[in-house]
Amino acid sequence: MDLKALAAANPDHWSKATAIRALTLDAVAAANSGHSGMPMGMADVATVLFEKHLKFDPTQPNWPDRDRFILSAGHGSMLLYALLHLTGYADMTLEEIKNFRQWGSRTAGHPEYGHASGIETTTGPLGQGIANSVGFAMAEEIQRAQYGKKVVDHYTYVIAGDGCLMEGVSQEAITLAGRHQLSKLIVLWDNNDITIDGPVSLSDRTDQIGRFKSAGWDVLETDGHDPVAIDAALSQAKTGKKPTMIACKTHIALGHAAQDTSKGHGALTDADQMAAAKEAYGWKTGPFEVPADVKAAWEAIGARGADVRRAWEERFDALPRAKRETFNRAYALEAPKKLSAVIKAFKKQMSEAAPKLATRASSEKVLEVINPVMPETIGGSADLTGSNNTKTSDLGVFDVDSRAGRYVYWGIREHGMAAAMNGMALHGGLRPYGGTFMCFTDYARPAMRLSALMKIPTVYVMTHDSIGLGEDGPTHQPVEHLAISRATPNTHVFRPADTIETAEAWELALTSKQTPSVLSLTRQGLKTLRTEHKTKNMVAQGAYVLADADGKRQAILLATGSEVEIAMAARDILQADGIGTRVVSMPCWELFEEQDEAYRKRVLPGGPVRVAVEAGIRFGWDRWLFGERGKREKSGFIGMHDFGASAPASTLYEEFGITAEAVAQKVKSLIK
Amino acid sequence: MDLKALAAANPDHWSKATAIRALTLDAVAAANSGHSGMPMGMADVATVLFEKHLKFDPTQPNWPDRDRFILSAGHGSMLLYALLHLTGYADMTLEEIKNFRQWGSRTAGHPEYGHASGIETTTGPLGQGIANSVGFAMAEEIQRAQYGKKVVDHYTYVIAGDGCLMEGVSQEAITLAGRHQLSKLIVLWDNNDITIDGPVSLSDRTDQIGRFKSAGWDVLETDGHDPVAIDAALSQAKTGKKPTMIACKTHIALGHAAQDTSKGHGALTDADQMAAAKEAYGWKTGPFEVPADVKAAWEAIGARGADVRRAWEERFDALPRAKRETFNRAYALEAPKKLSAVIKAFKKQMSEAAPKLATRASSEKVLEVINPVMPETIGGSADLTGSNNTKTSDLGVFDVDSRAGRYVYWGIREHGMAAAMNGMALHGGLRPYGGTFMCFTDYARPAMRLSALMKIPTVYVMTHDSIGLGEDGPTHQPVEHLAISRATPNTHVFRPADTIETAEAWELALTSKQTPSVLSLTRQGLKTLRTEHKTKNMVAQGAYVLADADGKRQAILLATGSEVEIAMAARDILQADGIGTRVVSMPCWELFEEQDEAYRKRVLPGGPVRVAVEAGIRFGWDRWLFGERGKREKSGFIGMHDFGASAPASTLYEEFGITAEAVAQKVKSLIK
Repeated sequence: MDLKALAAANPDHWSKATAIRALTLDAVAAANSGHSGMPMGMADVATVLFEKHLKFDPTQPNWPDRDRFILSAGHGSMLLYALLHLTGYADMTLEEIKNFRQWGSRTAGHPEYGHASGIETTTGPLGQGIANSVGFAMAEEIQRAQYGKKVVDHYTYVIAGDGCLMEGVSQEAITLAGRHQLSKLIVLWDNNDITIDGPVSLSDRTDQIGRFKSAGWDVLETDGHDPVAIDAALSQAKTGKKPTMIACKTHIALGHAAQDTSKGHGALTDADQMAAAKEAYGWKTGPFEVPADVKAAWEAIGARGADVRRAWEERFDALPRAKRETFNRAYALEAPKKLSAVIKAFKKQMSEAAPKLATRASSEKVLEVINPVMPETIGGSADLTGSNNTKTSDLGVFDVDSRAGRYVYWGIREHGMAAAMNGMALHGGLRPYGGTFMCFTDYARPAMRLSALMKIPTVYVMTHDSIGLGEDGPTHQPVEHLAISRATPNTHVFRPADTIETAEAWELALTSKQTPSVLSLTRQGLKTLRTEHKTKNMVAQGAYVLADADGKRQAILLATGSEVEIAMAARDILQADGIGTRVVSMPCWELFEEQDEAYRKRVLPGGPVRVAVEAGIRFGWDRWLFGERGKREKSGFIGMHDFGASAPASTLYEEFGITAEAVAQKVKSLIK
Repeated sequence: MDLKALAAANPDHWSKATAIRALTLDAVAAANSGHSGMPMGMADVATVLFEKHLKFDPTQPNWPDRDRFILSAGHGSMLLYALLHLTGYADMTLEEIKNFRQWGSRTAGHPEYGHASGIETTTGPLGQGIANSVGFAMAEEIQRAQYGKKVVDHYTYVIAGDGCLMEGVSQEAITLAGRHQLSKLIVLWDNNDITIDGPVSLSDRTDQIGRFKSAGWDVLETDGHDPVAIDAALSQAKTGKKPTMIACKTHIALGHAAQDTSKGHGALTDADQMAAAKEAYGWKTGPFEVPADVKAAWEAIGARGADVRRAWEERFDALPRAKRETFNRAYALEAPKKLSAVIKAFKKQMSEAAPKLATRASSEKVLEVINPVMPETIGGSADLTGSNNTKTSDLGVFDVDSRAGRYVYWGIREHGMAAAMNGMALHGGLRPYGGTFMCFTDYARPAMRLSALMKIPTVYVMTHDSIGLGEDGPTHQPVEHLAISRATPNTHVFRPADTIETAEAWELALTSKQTPSVLSLTRQGLKTLRTEHKTKNMVAQGAYVLADADGKRQAILLATGSEVEIAMAARDILQADGIGTRVVSMPCWELFEEQDEAYRKRVLPGGPVRVAVEAGIRFGWDRWLFGERGKREKSGFIGMHDFGASAPASTLYEEFGITAEAVAQKVKSLIK
């Protein structure tokens, strides 16, 4: 590249973009780790985007109608940090840049949501950002339909690299965006022909232009180092009726000795080569020094959004009070006051009616009372609507001509659904929930982990949660998936035992502000066990005594979900034999763990024999069998020891020995 | 559809295809569950494929040079079962068809590898079959290069539905196949416009023709009910230089009242509607009855491969003896005799040299001695070759013009890599291993689970296995992933502590016949702890005493991988204070679990204080802390309690308190 010509053609632009490159080189060198090449390659594109297009105000970073900027290629985090610093985000100080990738800094190796203003989502696991962006853009459409264009009218811009586009989740994302004609979604592809292992062609020769077109996108191409062309492409992208992908031809590590090589992808820390690159840029200041005029030019860019934001505030204030309140409440993740009341009324009604229902059907029933009072919920399913029972009568369907619809047919895209739900939650103002089979948490795992890491309350409705699924067989029967979800930090795994617990779990999921929820629900019908109405949310304690021992307490049965009914039947057998037996329902281990020791001790006192029953593997159960005042010698587990099989559910429970008789027998063998 | 016209146009074909439809209707009705519509819609395509193209011999179902037929749309399992039964696979009796989806039958809800001959892979989780098929086709190319076209020359045929094509993994698969010009891979797309939730258009409007072309495929289109057109398309597909996708326009549930509807996707059990459909087909026999002439026609199709197979056997027998032996040995998953010797020699050399190495680097060193003696290994990485240390000097690179290359640049496609590795393992004759970061087991999960379920010994090289990864931060730091892998049935999770254990783990992974392995390897350098050479493979026992207590045994430290070094340093501190301390290295929990109780008791005797140290979460550890003769009151855990952070690795270990001092302190606090 002839850098001199580039600089001469657009000197003001050049100095601004070079500030990004120089800060990147300096920060990566100081950290002695990180990724220099991507920010250096995409600095021109990002500069034009921030200078000419992005609607933002660093003094109000969470202004709801800002454009969203998503760095899907998260390893290029210094691009984002440099932009935030240069445009004047108060918490992105030069000190933070200098502490890139160090303990306690806001400038983590990859952008971490919550670490600093202006980081819209956590990226790094490739493909997640572009998949989040579909949810961001859907959220904008939905809220625009709900509140009007005067207060909701913004774009979602994404920078994605070859890695993002090779990950399968990006296909799920772009076909969703194309299907729904998300015209305010604009993806800037950093088309640099380089991956870590070498040229992209080593592993991929996809015609990305053709691919995006096949998914229903408009595609533009631009020289990623020509600010005039970039600006024109962005302007054109904003006029389309489809989502737009702009293929930006760039040089990774522009101007460095490692330009256009896979070495350029990584940390460029050689002092001489850094000096040579800065020399070639015409950059004369020392490390971390941005010339005052360049910083001022960047700050002017940062300042240009304030007026727009103030005008928006005036328009927002002109909304009817009820609308404003709902808007603000939803953004604050506050549940409506009515929620608690409708849940209580539902519980009362159901504890009296005592229906036999699969908890997936219980879930639908409770959603029927929740959705009308929570306009911020957005339901959906990955092509299992009738099985997941996620669609209620009043939601409507989100579509090109019905943007206010609150139900999304996600298609067979569990991963894309989960990542897009994260995007909706991150956008603000919405509470997404989406369903698939529990076994297919596997497909959604990368995005589910990010819900937990980002501390956003996405709700996963995972039905068919055991061998109770029956004939579909072991490919569809989760056995390790409760353990997997429970092993994930900051995740509430609810496995309700009946309609009442299901309602309580939903209340907790929809009032959570920082923790995602997994609702593990049955295919098969379950008795109502909680026939005595209590206004108190018992699931909130994680575990509780469902039925205490008659007479001397000799055994405690621990169970979750569909196996609580089995534990209750085992209790009947044992009590008939004079063995006093307590049944503890444990719908949420994590919440039980959070209770104080006194409560845990009351529920699980030391002494009696303990048997846990759950139609999953034992992994993790020892915590409650041995660890909470239990004793190894006096404990047992009834559950799965391997993958399931294909047969009717009742046969499977018999064959795998998950029965009331087996539980009672285990207790007796331990007592003897 | 005018069924009469279809029947009249090709009556012989029609009766054969109708046999599939009728058996499907009957089996699904008997099971009262399953998926009728897909087999009914694709019966014509499958009939033509089996009759005119597929190279197979039901009497020798594992004949290595057979064509592979992969039913990626696994819910349509009755299509496969009907074909196997009709063409005369001995174990697919009519009784099995009648017992569709019942306990103990070969005819599970979805095709299960190992349940019956002719099931090449387990499908049902959508997209897996088409992704497996890339591995099958690569394996054919590699083996053709290794053994010659006379003995390896077959096609891989796939039937995929809209679900398969919507799943992201299908994009990873088709772009890989396109990149590598896998011209013997032919995908038949069941283009029926229906998903469970309704018309495909509800969730997807992808131009699949354009999409496959963008991935480097040839695309053909055919009427999926016209046998002449189907035959012509298949013939043409076999002549191309690229993989071919044939879009087969079909009617789901052809001829049934539910034709062309989402209801048709499921179980069609209404007796009157079934009778009406059979009437429309002109099918007059009772349930499960195939007219003798139709069965005979199908058996003739099944018989046509025997001569071809015998001719192949002659050609195979003409190969040099050494080639034949290697071929047969690799298909039998027998390790070469040399393997044990080179591993022992390597261990001896390394225990003497005692290098400080990251176990990922140890892994590379041991692969350098393994790969030359095991021509069946196929290495690769999902674009982290230099980080995963998976490429050794002699492998060569698999590419269009170097089919004998044994290293695959998989690109940023963890899921596609894992599924394709499964395909290679299923094809036979190869032992694939592939690398990514441990954290990205998340992306590969659905395929990793299938390795375990199918009982195939795929090897996952998962490096950067803890916060030891350092600055890349929590998005890249596994904390729950050891637990996730350990929670999965039939999976060996190896976390070696040094170069010697790494070599032993590799030996076990490459001699396994039925269990996949996860090798959890460090980024950071580790001391050689096993400096005294033992020929015995200590990792084979799962856990063992690495260093025993000096004096009275007061404490046992349990550790894996990088934390064994910390445990040893803690032992030094404790012994200096007169506290006799044993260190148990636990590189593979599953193998330790398999040892007899006497051995487990010798390694973990009751009595002493126990502290486990692992830079992951505690989930699962209670089994060893409390459960194996341990006591809650005298146990502790030093490890992670939440997600990690971005900082240098040494800082993270300090800040998260995973240090020798913390371990020693914990022991002392428990002993007091």
